[in-house]
Amino acid sequence: MEAAPTTSASPDAPSPDAPSPEASGVPSLLSGIQPSGTLHIGNYFGAIRQHIANAANTEGRTDAFFFIANYHALTSLRDAERLRQLTFDVALDYLALGFDPTNAHLFVQSDVPEVTELTWVFLTLTPVSQLEKGVSYKDKVAQGLSANGGLLAYPILQAADILAYGDPSAPVLVPVGADQKQNIEIARDLAIRFNNVFAPEAEPILPVPEARIMEEVAIVPGIDGRKMSKSYGNTIPIFEEGKALKKIIMSIVTDSTPLEDPKDPETDNVFALIKLFAGGDEAAEIAESYRAGGYGYGHAKKALLGMVEKQFAEARERRRELAARPDDVWDVLRQGATAAQEAAAATLSRVREATGLATTIR
Amino acid sequence: MEAAPTTSASPDAPSPDAPSPEASGVPSLLSGIQPSGTLHIGNYFGAIRQHIANAANTEGRTDAFFFIANYHALTSLRDAERLRQLTFDVALDYLALGFDPTNAHLFVQSDVPEVTELTWVFLTLTPVSQLEKGVSYKDKVAQGLSANGGLLAYPILQAADILAYGDPSAPVLVPVGADQKQNIEIARDLAIRFNNVFAPEAEPILPVPEARIMEEVAIVPGIDGRKMSKSYGNTIPIFEEGKALKKIIMSIVTDSTPLEDPKDPETDNVFALIKLFAGGDEAAEIAESYRAGGYGYGHAKKALLGMVEKQFAEARERRRELAARPDDVWDVLRQGATAAQEAAAATLSRVREATGLATTIR
Repeated sequence: MEAAPTTSASPDAPSPDAPSPEASGVPSLLSGIQPSGTLHIGNYFGAIRQHIANAANTEGRTDAFFFIANYHALTSLRDAERLRQLTFDVALDYLALGFDPTNAHLFVQSDVPEVTELTWVFLTLTPVSQLEKGVSYKDKVAQGLSANGGLLAYPILQAADILAYGDPSAPVLVPVGADQKQNIEIARDLAIRFNNVFAPEAEPILPVPEARIMEEVAIVPGIDGRKMSKSYGNTIPIFEEGKALKKIIMSIVTDSTPLEDPKDPETDNVFALIKLFAGGDEAAEIAESYRAGGYGYGHAKKALLGMVEKQFAEARERRRELAARPDDVWDVLRQGATAAQEAAAATLSRVREATGLATTIR
Repeated sequence: MEAAPTTSASPDAPSPDAPSPEASGVPSLLSGIQPSGTLHIGNYFGAIRQHIANAANTEGRTDAFFFIANYHALTSLRDAERLRQLTFDVALDYLALGFDPTNAHLFVQSDVPEVTELTWVFLTLTPVSQLEKGVSYKDKVAQGLSANGGLLAYPILQAADILAYGDPSAPVLVPVGADQKQNIEIARDLAIRFNNVFAPEAEPILPVPEARIMEEVAIVPGIDGRKMSKSYGNTIPIFEEGKALKKIIMSIVTDSTPLEDPKDPETDNVFALIKLFAGGDEAAEIAESYRAGGYGYGHAKKALLGMVEKQFAEARERRRELAARPDDVWDVLRQGATAAQEAAAATLSRVREATGLATTIR
């Protein structure tokens, strides 16, 4: 598992599936991110940027829920202090980067334990053979690694996250990368199966989710040229700065074309990163310099360093301010959790009634 | 899955394992029963009788928790009305049979959803290969049946039940039949693993359970001579009465030895049941009649019918009274749930702190 956000994208992208006929209400939106490492610019361009845009864009949706998936992180992290810190840091990073909590609920997954109850119910509806087809689980097994039950049940907890907060009369939109599509299908199947089994004649109990596949983001190369990923140790952390940031950027792998020779920007890692940060004109200008010769990789790296510093300067400042008043971050998470708990309680109340788990006690 | 109680026995039986050195406190006691069918006399002699005795015997223990495992029942039952009824009926039956709720907590599993959160945490600590070795799961797969994820995770939820209520400084005693020993081992392994991973230097977070294997109960034959079991359709329900009860008992399979001939009581199904109900002298007397001849199976069945009626007469009366005031039954369950919730909340608070799932919010 990577620190990669599990979801992201524009809610305006066309849906691959027609909405169900019952789903006449206004959709809600759901995204999650696993707190399993320091966020890097691969995460930023891959998902965080879209999360922040989605939180801001309230058009065509009701509530939007963004959760920090610390139950999921437990499948690979067994260090309380680190998990707590990473969980807090995701909130801090998102708020610093401009996530607006007045437009969307930001909360910690474990503040809504209802999702684990829903996970149990869903497990009883899922054939083991289907669990074994999960991509993350299969990958791990293919690598000859011993997978734990949490990894096997990972998509089922994710389905619970997806289905816990929405109004059953409307779809839940889940912006995701193409590689996450399978997990949305699992949630979709479970919602439909649950509604069919436990409410065949009645109003649906669970909302039916719809994946919003985000436009292909250029793969963000790491400093060694492979895809930027915590597991490759080739990342540029978003909030790195000063000498440490310079050292990382200066260590980006390039070929050994001499300074004076012309270079092909399209095959260079530094330029691939520059393109993500620079405006079109600026990037075209730098590409020109590459091709003209007399422009070395050192020049390009310095340009990139300046861009990274500029891009995140404001966020870095905001992060420093926020880090000095952690209670404000917790307040945001507390408010998000309250809204999420309320929504999840309503869902679980319907689920417990429909399955017969409800007694007169709660 | 059968309606069979999942646990039972005398807390006085010697432990197969020495208590852990830290486990210096006074043990608690934990038993569960799955509400998946009308309780029958196989359940009664196999476990209910012991549950009721254990609830009454407060010596050498602190709290005792008896839960009705409706989350577990969901692995095979998808009918809300029936699950709710069966759940209520287990409580009604236990109370009618003499379970004393002033000495032990009787509650419904789903009134303490904390166990599902604990289940998630435990899943992340359990290799899938271990899940696949679970007896119930293996049996189902061996029968060529498609198992659901709930069945695969069944022993993990059971481990959560076992570990949710106890004081970590004392063992949890779990009275079980020999066939349930594996599941207690799983819970034991999980408790030790959890304590080692998340609190290697500190006080243990979870109590370590100890199986109390109950003395071998004679297998209770069903009316067709096979082991009495809901799945064989050969049961004598505890609270059957009148003509229906008579019809069931009269249909017990015997051989065709004529009335006047001597018979061997030890090979007869009716006598096997009589032995469970009759005192030693009475059983010896009837055995004598069998061997003497001139005593037919019809006589034996009538004797058995009288015994069943007598044994449960008082309970039947009490059940009728209780059924007329269901709120009193719910009150018992509500009180049990309150005590169980309090104990589980303390456990989960420690678990959330130790794993890093705790935020400052809860």
